[in-house]
Amino acid sequence: MSELTRKAEKLDAADELAAKRAEFVLDDVVYLDGNSLGALPAAVPGRVEDVVRRQWGELRIRSWTEGGWWTAPERIGDRIAPLVGAAAGQVVVGDSTSVNVFKALVGAVRLARQADGGGLGRDEIVVDATTFPTDGYLAGSAARMTGCTLRPVPPSEVTDALGDRTAAVLLNHVDYRTGRLHDLPSLTAAVHAAGAYVVWDLCHSAGALPVGLDEHGVDLAVGCTYKYLNGGPGAPAFLYVRADLQDRFDSPLPGWNSHAEPFGMRAEYEPAAGAVRGRVGTPDILSMLALEAALEVWDGVTIDAVRAKSLALTDFFLECVEEYVPEGRVECVTPRAHGERGSQVALRCPDAGDVMERLIERGVVGDFRRPDVLRFGFTPLYVGFADVERAARVLAEELA
Amino acid sequence: MSELTRKAEKLDAADELAAKRAEFVLDDVVYLDGNSLGALPAAVPGRVEDVVRRQWGELRIRSWTEGGWWTAPERIGDRIAPLVGAAAGQVVVGDSTSVNVFKALVGAVRLARQADGGGLGRDEIVVDATTFPTDGYLAGSAARMTGCTLRPVPPSEVTDALGDRTAAVLLNHVDYRTGRLHDLPSLTAAVHAAGAYVVWDLCHSAGALPVGLDEHGVDLAVGCTYKYLNGGPGAPAFLYVRADLQDRFDSPLPGWNSHAEPFGMRAEYEPAAGAVRGRVGTPDILSMLALEAALEVWDGVTIDAVRAKSLALTDFFLECVEEYVPEGRVECVTPRAHGERGSQVALRCPDAGDVMERLIERGVVGDFRRPDVLRFGFTPLYVGFADVERAARVLAEELA
Repeated sequence: MSELTRKAEKLDAADELAAKRAEFVLDDVVYLDGNSLGALPAAVPGRVEDVVRRQWGELRIRSWTEGGWWTAPERIGDRIAPLVGAAAGQVVVGDSTSVNVFKALVGAVRLARQADGGGLGRDEIVVDATTFPTDGYLAGSAARMTGCTLRPVPPSEVTDALGDRTAAVLLNHVDYRTGRLHDLPSLTAAVHAAGAYVVWDLCHSAGALPVGLDEHGVDLAVGCTYKYLNGGPGAPAFLYVRADLQDRFDSPLPGWNSHAEPFGMRAEYEPAAGAVRGRVGTPDILSMLALEAALEVWDGVTIDAVRAKSLALTDFFLECVEEYVPEGRVECVTPRAHGERGSQVALRCPDAGDVMERLIERGVVGDFRRPDVLRFGFTPLYVGFADVERAARVLAEELA
Repeated sequence: MSELTRKAEKLDAADELAAKRAEFVLDDVVYLDGNSLGALPAAVPGRVEDVVRRQWGELRIRSWTEGGWWTAPERIGDRIAPLVGAAAGQVVVGDSTSVNVFKALVGAVRLARQADGGGLGRDEIVVDATTFPTDGYLAGSAARMTGCTLRPVPPSEVTDALGDRTAAVLLNHVDYRTGRLHDLPSLTAAVHAAGAYVVWDLCHSAGALPVGLDEHGVDLAVGCTYKYLNGGPGAPAFLYVRADLQDRFDSPLPGWNSHAEPFGMRAEYEPAAGAVRGRVGTPDILSMLALEAALEVWDGVTIDAVRAKSLALTDFFLECVEEYVPEGRVECVTPRAHGERGSQVALRCPDAGDVMERLIERGVVGDFRRPDVLRFGFTPLYVGFADVERAARVLAEELA
């Protein structure tokens, strides 16, 4: 038994989240792709069966009221809220992340202009130039449809790019490729100092590390529920609108679900108060209630404990890679500093595509991001330290 | 046995769609609310269980490619296409109806302006003034964000309202409240004659009657899959963009899923060719694959046979109501002419809310639309003539 194997054993023995693994359906694969699609929580299949057979099949239309379908978007939003540091009543679930980026960003531009007395002086949307592409595309559409210019800026230059013309800023909390964690408190403060509004994309941080939306005064945020929140493939995303902005939040997608009186069938749109204002059309119940069941794994878990384990996992992975992998064979593009690291490790190597295929064949599942990145996500609720050691060992063997 | 009971027996015996009822999970309730939420097709629970337990739980991320998740939106779109008279490659499934109304209507305005050489002369969106509210709200947003004026017009006055300023027109094929079927061929032709583009909302006609999108040269259409298509609560909607318009379709929601090279992770948006261009974010797999299973009930069924039975059902319901219900107690607001009738019957009576509650208690499930409408939907795949006779009889007893 190697020294690192022994260390993994000790770390696993001391892991207070270790028991959570039993709440997931897992085989003997080392699953390091939970930052793409979270594993299946064991509570989900039974819940989904109940939703389909009883709630839909037997109660049918009555489930909209009696079964709690109608209020699911805000109820499940409140279940997610503490994981991203939000008090209740500010998060609503529904639509895809992309659609929510559009709502949030157009909403942010309108907030900025309202604050400026309705003028069009604020005519720039700043967006992280290294963002996951969909954010950039939708920021482009939001800019076009609000008469703004889109200004892509590397995250390190965002602060310098802000000014009187900045209406809204769209930033990623954790970079999807490198795993770099951006400084949400200071960037939020900088955007506010410029009189602009910020939208944070939490896809790679929600459920992985503390976000502190309320604490840091974030304006709007969107996030994904099928990565670290294990909601299932394409599960609905969430939208956060800070409580004191909700009355002024002016959504570009005003559907009947966000009406103050949705069943009044009134021709005039009158937006609801609260997080409900972020809703649009009929919620996707099957996926939404699967997500609700998936969120039960968070019972009794603090996001701080998750973060502590996440850092321990990525530290240990880097240690194992350094020990096992021949020097110079991979280059780590994820920052070493804890304050700059999300819950993944990205390693660059020239033949990354082939290497990842072979890893997957050998039961170590990460993913490949073009052109040359091996991406490994560490989900503290079900990944252990022995998994990490095995992953690094198999990687080293394939790279030898 | 009354004469109408005997007639129902005869009609049921001659009904070539009668066997389809066995493909649904139904109890002894007369379910006349399939125009709100379709009944559960028997194939769905098993399929959903496979999607959750095997495709998500075991194959996990591999299902995106190996399990056909990635291509589901257009594959399921092609399954819906023949039901609305569309050749393959023009329908894509995803997002809510509301979100698709926004895509289609902004797209239509942009098409009109492109056709006019890019000018802003076409600055009016005409919308059915009696529309389901969400269409009106989103048309308002589309107008606001494209520099148009929204002009609500009663359907009968649409033709007169069209002109050089009309960019786009949003119409309902069947009115959600009255069940009135609008004349899609002639209204489409009128919109085209004015140089404008039409968006049809097929929520209350898809799966209930022939639509003939291709035949009548419709530009864009959206529709719901949880009513007559039985896709489940909040199942994803569909978007039709006519083949020869797809290259010019300029979506206001350009997500990574509609990129020509979605995994290229490119900063510049380059829209995909074909129906895929209507996609936005990651598809909601659980709901989408439940819908795919639900669509299997259409195997061997023609929409013409469905329409023939639908008219027979509503004719027979009106006959029974006339026979059983005391004269003057209800007023039918659904047109008698077949050419103007969808697949529902709406009856007005002053105490409609209370009456519907009592009907539901007695196993006859329709719904109530404020202020005074009893709404009964007739879904030919699982409603029979004996159901219809019973519904009218119970209604008469409650109204007596």
